[in-house]
Amino acid sequence: MSSLCNGGSCRPQVIAVCANHRRHYQVTLNENLLQTGIYQLADKIGSRQALIVTTPTVSRLYGSVLQKQLRSVGCSAPLLVLRCTERSKTMRQIEYISSQAYSHGLGRNSVLIGVGGGVCTDLVTVAASLVRRGIGCIRVPTTLIGQVDAGVGVKGAVNTPQKKSALGCFYAPDAVFIEPSFLKTLSLRHVSSGIAEIIKIALVCDNSLFCLLERHLSRLLESRFSSPHDESRAVLWGSVARMIDELSSNLYEDQGYRRLMDFGHTFSPLLEVRSKFRLSHGEAVAIDMALTIVLSNQLGALTDGDRDRALSVIASSWLPLRSDLLTEAVCMDSFRETTIHRGGALNFVLPTSLGRAEFIEHANKIPFSLLRSSLIWLASVEPRTFSPTLRLSVA
Amino acid sequence: MSSLCNGGSCRPQVIAVCANHRRHYQVTLNENLLQTGIYQLADKIGSRQALIVTTPTVSRLYGSVLQKQLRSVGCSAPLLVLRCTERSKTMRQIEYISSQAYSHGLGRNSVLIGVGGGVCTDLVTVAASLVRRGIGCIRVPTTLIGQVDAGVGVKGAVNTPQKKSALGCFYAPDAVFIEPSFLKTLSLRHVSSGIAEIIKIALVCDNSLFCLLERHLSRLLESRFSSPHDESRAVLWGSVARMIDELSSNLYEDQGYRRLMDFGHTFSPLLEVRSKFRLSHGEAVAIDMALTIVLSNQLGALTDGDRDRALSVIASSWLPLRSDLLTEAVCMDSFRETTIHRGGALNFVLPTSLGRAEFIEHANKIPFSLLRSSLIWLASVEPRTFSPTLRLSVA
Repeated sequence: MSSLCNGGSCRPQVIAVCANHRRHYQVTLNENLLQTGIYQLADKIGSRQALIVTTPTVSRLYGSVLQKQLRSVGCSAPLLVLRCTERSKTMRQIEYISSQAYSHGLGRNSVLIGVGGGVCTDLVTVAASLVRRGIGCIRVPTTLIGQVDAGVGVKGAVNTPQKKSALGCFYAPDAVFIEPSFLKTLSLRHVSSGIAEIIKIALVCDNSLFCLLERHLSRLLESRFSSPHDESRAVLWGSVARMIDELSSNLYEDQGYRRLMDFGHTFSPLLEVRSKFRLSHGEAVAIDMALTIVLSNQLGALTDGDRDRALSVIASSWLPLRSDLLTEAVCMDSFRETTIHRGGALNFVLPTSLGRAEFIEHANKIPFSLLRSSLIWLASVEPRTFSPTLRLSVA
Repeated sequence: MSSLCNGGSCRPQVIAVCANHRRHYQVTLNENLLQTGIYQLADKIGSRQALIVTTPTVSRLYGSVLQKQLRSVGCSAPLLVLRCTERSKTMRQIEYISSQAYSHGLGRNSVLIGVGGGVCTDLVTVAASLVRRGIGCIRVPTTLIGQVDAGVGVKGAVNTPQKKSALGCFYAPDAVFIEPSFLKTLSLRHVSSGIAEIIKIALVCDNSLFCLLERHLSRLLESRFSSPHDESRAVLWGSVARMIDELSSNLYEDQGYRRLMDFGHTFSPLLEVRSKFRLSHGEAVAIDMALTIVLSNQLGALTDGDRDRALSVIASSWLPLRSDLLTEAVCMDSFRETTIHRGGALNFVLPTSLGRAEFIEHANKIPFSLLRSSLIWLASVEPRTFSPTLRLSVA
């Protein structure tokens, strides 16, 4: 045995540990997932024990056909039906999912399958990351926001009453399946919320996606993305591809905090909390984007024409442009919290044309007077100004 | 725009995502951590905002000196004092830590520092992995079990009333600092619990560690690892090195579930829950090891002499050899749950000599009659038989 100390001066003894982690996954657009596409889903489940986590609505509409089709290809998976709202996106739900996972006998090689909207797949992502310190996770997002945003990346989170996404994880799924026909049964509000994220993607990095959306918005909304068919798929899959393209070089956000996909996500987290989650995520993002667009115009970075086209697409999507909850104080609190969250820099994403954006690194580069005048401008404007041609046969 | 569908047959469209993650960390033996060693700790904190999470006892004994010394080298970190027991190792505590982290303004580049026993560092590991989807984490384990086991790897977990470690994570810390003089103030029960994990390590892979411990056990216990100095450091650091050596090739347990370090961890999780956490983790591990040792002897894999030496070291460490809670039914339930947890194979770790072990892959290789006779054998034995020379001046 060698002594660790030499003559009273103790040098620290060090062991270096290398922690390494790799995962790959595929995001697949599967038309007919519940018919011919069931083989792809079954293939990803493999021989693993599975538990499907879903919502009351999805269970009612697709639960039995999903289970029947899976059984027909030799997969049996019980359904766990959960109320999934931002208010119930809590650690308590994660504990409930885990207790159900354990009582169904799920082990290391098992898989949770989230079939539902963004809240459902978020809950499943967090639960899968924590049950047995990480089990398999397959996502089948059934809402538009899930298909183009919440369901495709590696992030999951739960809320506390005080804070949106207070506890979360980066956890890569085994696979993501996007089946556009799930959108057919969505409410207008759900489709609108999803379009908010498509607008976000388009505005900061894809002019042709913006133009395509702008041109076909009314029919896409009305038909729930079932027609025009090719344009619908191009918008949907184009958004997914753009999103992944933007995320993939910095999937774990360890390469910095300048992310175009943060557009619309500076004021919206606090706004959602302040509304006690009565505003949907997409609605909060829309309000955030609208303010940012007007601010960009007031800063001289965005033309009046581009501002009006951007606001028009938002309003024509039946999304709000403003909220009384978004006060100057909430904006300032948001800047503070966002700066902390983004590692000390605000990295505010400012659209400079329809499909391009730049970053404002610090809040002090945004004159308070312009923030105020942007809020006043939005308060005075009539949203219908921006959607004069909107003719939608909706409830 | 190209059509995604050709003539009605829709091929799935696929995007592949590569998720990559790397972290390195160091485990350091720092004598005088709170004096000259404070520079090493401060160096790891760097300019980051920090929050120290600690226990009432550690706060009382070391809180102010730790803060004072950190301040003297330019680091200021508030203390968050938490009751840390297996019963309070819950998601509720994680939510509390996160709310405190947010209200102290911790951002992405911040760090949680866990200064306490295994429960404290476990809570901090889980919280650090979830706050802002992962912030820095430094561990300063102050108990023996923390220093040789809970504090050095990448695992953290919380319990539910039904299940030990029901929700957990693999999350690499930024650094681990081991300061043996924290052990001076430990209760005998805490030291015993830590020795259980040292015995575990020694029995399955290090004969010389076992012999060293066996020879100096009484003084190490009595002096709380302060003397004999060199032997104490050799046992302590030898255990840490062995532990990391065993863990490092399979840190995320994605390379299989045959792990020597699972010795003593087959019956103990359920035993802890059934005792409502009145048995400490180390005590439950000791009871698990004792049964396994006797079983190994009855299976003809371990000599009577080695069995008695192994049991003697456990008993001489003031650890229990049995519990009325460990019934045949609990053993069978443990086999079932462990098999699920270890991906479909039991991989029961069976010591075959003092420093060697092999795996029993399936529970059906363990005759129920031998399990029963091992339990009966342990029930009939007088623990003092195994520690005739024990003379400890303890309360």
